[in-house]
Amino acid sequence: MSTSQLIIFDTTLRDGEQSPGASMTKDEKLRIARQLERLKVDVIEAGFAAASQGDFEAVRAIADTIRESTVCSLARANDRDISRAAEALKGAARSRIHTFIATSELHMEKKLRMTREQVLEQAIQAVRFARNLTDDIEFSPEDGYRSDPVFLAQVVEAVIREGARTINIPDTVGYAIPELYGNFIRELRERVPNSDQAIWSVHCHNDLGMAVANSLAGVKIGGARQVECTINGLGERAGNCSLEEVVMAVKTRRDYFGLDVRVDPSQIVPASRMVSQTTGFVVQPNKAVVGANAFAHASGIHQDGVLKARDTYEIMRAEDVGWSANKIVLGKLSGRNAFKQRLQELGVQLGSEAEINAAFQRFKDLADRKAEIFDEDILALVMDESAAHEQERYRLVALAQRSETGERPHAQVVFSDADQEVRTESEGNGPVDAVLRAIETKVQSGAELLLYSVNAITSGSTESQGEVTVRLQHAGRVVNGVGADPDIVVASAKAYLSALNKLQSRTERVAAQG
Amino acid sequence: MSTSQLIIFDTTLRDGEQSPGASMTKDEKLRIARQLERLKVDVIEAGFAAASQGDFEAVRAIADTIRESTVCSLARANDRDISRAAEALKGAARSRIHTFIATSELHMEKKLRMTREQVLEQAIQAVRFARNLTDDIEFSPEDGYRSDPVFLAQVVEAVIREGARTINIPDTVGYAIPELYGNFIRELRERVPNSDQAIWSVHCHNDLGMAVANSLAGVKIGGARQVECTINGLGERAGNCSLEEVVMAVKTRRDYFGLDVRVDPSQIVPASRMVSQTTGFVVQPNKAVVGANAFAHASGIHQDGVLKARDTYEIMRAEDVGWSANKIVLGKLSGRNAFKQRLQELGVQLGSEAEINAAFQRFKDLADRKAEIFDEDILALVMDESAAHEQERYRLVALAQRSETGERPHAQVVFSDADQEVRTESEGNGPVDAVLRAIETKVQSGAELLLYSVNAITSGSTESQGEVTVRLQHAGRVVNGVGADPDIVVASAKAYLSALNKLQSRTERVAAQG
Repeated sequence: MSTSQLIIFDTTLRDGEQSPGASMTKDEKLRIARQLERLKVDVIEAGFAAASQGDFEAVRAIADTIRESTVCSLARANDRDISRAAEALKGAARSRIHTFIATSELHMEKKLRMTREQVLEQAIQAVRFARNLTDDIEFSPEDGYRSDPVFLAQVVEAVIREGARTINIPDTVGYAIPELYGNFIRELRERVPNSDQAIWSVHCHNDLGMAVANSLAGVKIGGARQVECTINGLGERAGNCSLEEVVMAVKTRRDYFGLDVRVDPSQIVPASRMVSQTTGFVVQPNKAVVGANAFAHASGIHQDGVLKARDTYEIMRAEDVGWSANKIVLGKLSGRNAFKQRLQELGVQLGSEAEINAAFQRFKDLADRKAEIFDEDILALVMDESAAHEQERYRLVALAQRSETGERPHAQVVFSDADQEVRTESEGNGPVDAVLRAIETKVQSGAELLLYSVNAITSGSTESQGEVTVRLQHAGRVVNGVGADPDIVVASAKAYLSALNKLQSRTERVAAQG
Repeated sequence: MSTSQLIIFDTTLRDGEQSPGASMTKDEKLRIARQLERLKVDVIEAGFAAASQGDFEAVRAIADTIRESTVCSLARANDRDISRAAEALKGAARSRIHTFIATSELHMEKKLRMTREQVLEQAIQAVRFARNLTDDIEFSPEDGYRSDPVFLAQVVEAVIREGARTINIPDTVGYAIPELYGNFIRELRERVPNSDQAIWSVHCHNDLGMAVANSLAGVKIGGARQVECTINGLGERAGNCSLEEVVMAVKTRRDYFGLDVRVDPSQIVPASRMVSQTTGFVVQPNKAVVGANAFAHASGIHQDGVLKARDTYEIMRAEDVGWSANKIVLGKLSGRNAFKQRLQELGVQLGSEAEINAAFQRFKDLADRKAEIFDEDILALVMDESAAHEQERYRLVALAQRSETGERPHAQVVFSDADQEVRTESEGNGPVDAVLRAIETKVQSGAELLLYSVNAITSGSTESQGEVTVRLQHAGRVVNGVGADPDIVVASAKAYLSALNKLQSRTERVAAQG
């Protein structure tokens, strides 16, 4: 089944979301899924339906919404997980169940406490069960790359016989080297008699910085025709294979790979920004393709070279992957229809007219304070709005703060706790510290601040909005609050309250393989 | 000359510094060079001596200070550049001159406007000239990977004959694929009759996300025994090969590479932090080895696996690469000697007793406002101090600001301009905007704000200091100002003034190849 089409399987919403602090709400996932559809990824792994009620609902909402991409749910190799996945996927135009079980000695012995025979039998039973519910089944032997190839081949042959159509070989711990991983896939395919009845897939982690090269060796040397990847390489530890890098490598080096990908590269940078803004995971400037510097040249010789002939230092063009100058899209004179239309163009769907009205009001408030409104501002405003709507126990009402050299900074905060208005004040080491202390005095969350960061949403002017990310940890849970405002102290208060809201809405959750 | 030793050549201070916005002062470079020496890199490329007087002095200061690593300067293939490099390196314990000229058709024709014969002749003359000044000469054919192999072999053979001891083949534009690059190096070596009289080196850029894998293929398949890399993969566009990734790959997969590296991995994270703090280039959380999440596990299954057996999900140990819990190192009762000793342990050398006294005073001021002082706080304080000392036209004296819901934020700033005190005030969209506007009203730099970001220097408490990075562009120059303070608005003012100081100290500069 070796074709010239390379299937792009995006797992930002499943494996990416497993990254500590990257957890997303249902609405956030839905917004990203829509962007992935615009990006034309072939398969969207929307989540792990059996992990929690929240995960189930997110997968269902995405399955009900997305029409152009296949929607997939992860499931452990048991009937309950697979049933839940199938149920969540019911409304999908095209759906896939992705089931997995570990096959390495280490994982079978230490984690599963199962014998080879038990693992083989469970894999067979799982795929057989899934086969009754769907005909698009993917099977992953977890820690496949560190598994005994003879046993692994036996498992893979059996699940293909049961009807698995995609076989994905994860390098779960990011231990592989391109040459070795490519050969591993090739030899495994040779060892499996019915290997041509499945599409082979690669899933690599980036612990040694080689996830993209390993994936591509799996494709070129191993003959895989599906790559599992995430936007910005989001994922646990050092993350997963970056979608943007693997796609642009295949496109830029078509001379070598000879493969087609359906992905529309002009949607890459918007997707990168959306994932970064939603999770609070910054993209470093020297990140390939989507980093702020990826297409910037500093040295005199380079600039000179670029001016003389673009190819001297550029192998891709910034505009091809969706980089464009910040455009002024709206201003204070823009009406509700223009605003609504821009939201649609940005792929944002607000649920009700009331929500659109609320967002439009906030837009007008912002336009009073900021002359030029960019796409990023609108996205931040809407994300801010929908995050606030989702779980709105705490909400900022008003804030006053001051600091002066030689005096302790001071803040007064009014916020709503459900229906009650709470007034509080505090000193602090700085105005942000004072605000957070003032809120904490009343909420008493006991949460630990793991991360505080600010990024300007748009560049080019000092009147940019600040986007603050606050990451809190409490009782083993890590959550992530984001707030945007032209006033950095206000943005900090919003971000802190948003994180507290997320800590509040505790959802128990089983999680999955990497 | 194939040995089991892999030479680590760090070019953070040369190719890394070419990244737009990453330019460093002499003192910053010296501090990083000392950390690179502690890291035990074999070769430190300290700069490009002929690029400017500032670059010359930085290379000279590093050559005069570093004893354990070879200190290298880049030089174009002409007598003047090479003489300047040799002069700057005079005080080094071990020195190297690295000369280069482009050999690809595209670069020769479009950039150099030279024929093959001219390029060959210039390469020969350059190495011959350098041979009189040093016996450690490295030669790089710029854009080597896109050069005609027959012509390239001719150039390489000639420069080895003239005495080049290291031959470095750059993938200047980040176009390579591991298999192709490895074979390119291997075939080139086979084509060069005297290839065994040189050590072969790889220099890869990360535009397609494969710099590490390409470098390692150059080593494994191609037989190279030197890797050129940078801390955090700093470098133009998507950056260079990451030192931390390439070193840990070789160590973790010693079974495959069979090579030794001298680098002390426990110094990797301190080096990463220092480079990130100095340049303002954030490291994304999902960056391999040095990202904040590189060793974090979120999913329930993973945590369970890690508890049962560490190897199930970990191939490296966080502590091996220098991750350690934030330790409280000093507090307000700590004395001047304890402070001075900690500075030494952190590799910070302040020039005079007066500087130590000034830094100690600032430390005491900070300790009055912040109970727990971490290593990061000390580094920020000292960097802040030395940056202010270096070029101190503008300096913050005092600041007062306030913001309140429903009113325009307002700031008053007092700063010194050379010996004069300037008082200014402004409104703004937020307190930071107000401060920056107030300063700009008086300075009238006309600079454009390219980047504004804040990171908490230490985590674990809301009383952390904020570290603000401001990147300004004016008249084609990009500079980077960093300021730290528990008050984020004060830190912003410091960062802005620091960037203005750098814009002020204009140094004309020729830059180099990538």
